[in-house]
Amino acid sequence: MDTPPLPNDAPAFADADSLLPAIAQDAQTGRVLMIAYMNREAYDLTLSTGWAVYYSRSRGALWRKGETSGNRQRVRRVLLDCDQDAILLQVDQEGGAACHQGYPSCFFREATPAGLRVVEQRVFDPSEVYGK
Amino acid sequence: MDTPPLPNDAPAFADADSLLPAIAQDAQTGRVLMIAYMNREAYDLTLSTGWAVYYSRSRGALWRKGETSGNRQRVRRVLLDCDQDAILLQVDQEGGAACHQGYPSCFFREATPAGLRVVEQRVFDPSEVYGK
Repeated sequence: MDTPPLPNDAPAFADADSLLPAIAQDAQTGRVLMIAYMNREAYDLTLSTGWAVYYSRSRGALWRKGETSGNRQRVRRVLLDCDQDAILLQVDQEGGAACHQGYPSCFFREATPAGLRVVEQRVFDPSEVYGK
Repeated sequence: MDTPPLPNDAPAFADADSLLPAIAQDAQTGRVLMIAYMNREAYDLTLSTGWAVYYSRSRGALWRKGETSGNRQRVRRVLLDCDQDAILLQVDQEGGAACHQGYPSCFFREATPAGLRVVEQRVFDPSEVYGK
């Protein structure tokens, strides 16, 4: 298996509209907080501002994480994978919760033989943060 | 913002061909090892066998992680995110390296103002494991 040369230092965005997955991980605890997507502009803004900026596929717009909830992500380290088609952010999660459902991590449910089981405690009530 | 009811206990594969991202994390250290994709069959095989099985987009086939390198992933926990469109595997990584380039993690390079910087040590030489 050949190891292809690295084209450059940026993620492999095919064009301005293409999206790549971005994982956010708590820089202190190692907890995986969430996965979202970035386009090139979101990636560049994340690097230049030091705050996580994603691209919301549902809204079709840049998503400055925490702009509604206040739960922003201060970026400590940005890592790229071997194929340069995935991004890992190591972040300090403000407010202690990454998930819009109020949990520290979006991965708050475990798949078990008996079905999904919630394995985290809620940090906030979504209806109080986002309104009804 | 409403919290939609959960449709069921499985990831939201739209059909047998649809893919969802799957993050593998070292169950002991918390290190994020890699991101790959699963179709429904790969997900079911992962749950039923206890070993990570992905779907290789480049090969268009199931990818039993480690079948060539021996670096299999014993799955300790499977978590789903809030939208049920992403999967997190907490695994014991055999051989100490998840990446086909010989690094513990595929995320072995940090994006810095001076360019990409390798931040991990190689565990194996890819040419010896995969051949030329």
